[in-house]
Amino acid sequence: MRIPRHIGIIPDGNRRWAKDKSMDKSDGYQHGLNPGLEVLKEAMRYGVEEVTYYGFTVDNCRRPKEQIKAFQQACTDAVKLIENEAVSLLVVGNTDSKFFPEELLPYTKRNIEEDSSKMKVNFLVNYGWDWDLRNGFCSKAISRIDMIIRWGGMCRLSGFLPVQSVYADFYVVNDLWPDYKNEHFEEAIKWYQKQDVTLGG
Amino acid sequence: MRIPRHIGIIPDGNRRWAKDKSMDKSDGYQHGLNPGLEVLKEAMRYGVEEVTYYGFTVDNCRRPKEQIKAFQQACTDAVKLIENEAVSLLVVGNTDSKFFPEELLPYTKRNIEEDSSKMKVNFLVNYGWDWDLRNGFCSKAISRIDMIIRWGGMCRLSGFLPVQSVYADFYVVNDLWPDYKNEHFEEAIKWYQKQDVTLGG
Repeated sequence: MRIPRHIGIIPDGNRRWAKDKSMDKSDGYQHGLNPGLEVLKEAMRYGVEEVTYYGFTVDNCRRPKEQIKAFQQACTDAVKLIENEAVSLLVVGNTDSKFFPEELLPYTKRNIEEDSSKMKVNFLVNYGWDWDLRNGFCSKAISRIDMIIRWGGMCRLSGFLPVQSVYADFYVVNDLWPDYKNEHFEEAIKWYQKQDVTLGG
Repeated sequence: MRIPRHIGIIPDGNRRWAKDKSMDKSDGYQHGLNPGLEVLKEAMRYGVEEVTYYGFTVDNCRRPKEQIKAFQQACTDAVKLIENEAVSLLVVGNTDSKFFPEELLPYTKRNIEEDSSKMKVNFLVNYGWDWDLRNGFCSKAISRIDMIIRWGGMCRLSGFLPVQSVYADFYVVNDLWPDYKNEHFEEAIKWYQKQDVTLGG
């Protein structure tokens, strides 16, 4: 089986999920934590070497204050959950802005003494494609992505790592992110078998 | 009806089409010329303001010599066909390389005296995402893209304008490019109606 070396995860649909459940939109994010851990374990089981999560973006910070607080908290919680796993963790994003959660500052350097056989996990926090490119490719510690899986039905990058995504195969799950099931991941891997890797050649 | 202002066209599948017809792979490209003109007229009819075609790339030039010749010729022919239409035409690509067809050099500057109400048509010829970004955003004359339509079943950018594509909705047609039908375009526009425009917000 051909396993993508590096998978990008776009966990979209938290607000729509909350709305469908008659909750406040901002309540959706906390329901995305468990899916984040489940998909990580599934990727490990398949032998994926690197996973990158799209946490929140500079663009997202134009939303109402209570939503901003909610996704900042959810990202902070997610990073702390992932920290407990046997992974090499890196947070990438614009730390010069007030929207970057202070608690996540210690995660913005990868521990170089770490066992290199560990799965790499990158978490984009207050990330901006424009910030990334204008400042000399701030995300260069993140490698080329082979497959992107996006939940929530939309087929677009929404600014996700433009350089690393140039050759990525894009798989869309119609279910919303808090409704994550391992079958989504399995279907994505199955679909990936039918894509040829040409790197644009 | 919500019409995408700028559409990107990835005309993939010429070689597979030729192979299916027991022709030489390199014979496929000439069969992509007519589709290029048809989709342009359809986009005009809908009032699309800008269209960008993915001609050939720096990556593509690693292919066998007869294929390179064939897609260089097809792109040159396509630009000359499009020139006859009432559009403002621009060719964008790495002109410093031997793979850039000399005949297309005069098209690499947009005629600034041209009627600004004309549809803009951009044609990427010997384009490379890396060349584009490393040299200070060579494609900056091309605006943000709202929708990308890719023929041939693959769901990936293959290096197509990473900066302009950050927020683009991606629509995939399973048919191969030489089998273009106006219904493909109509279906794409219909699908676009169901996408919300958030620009990452």
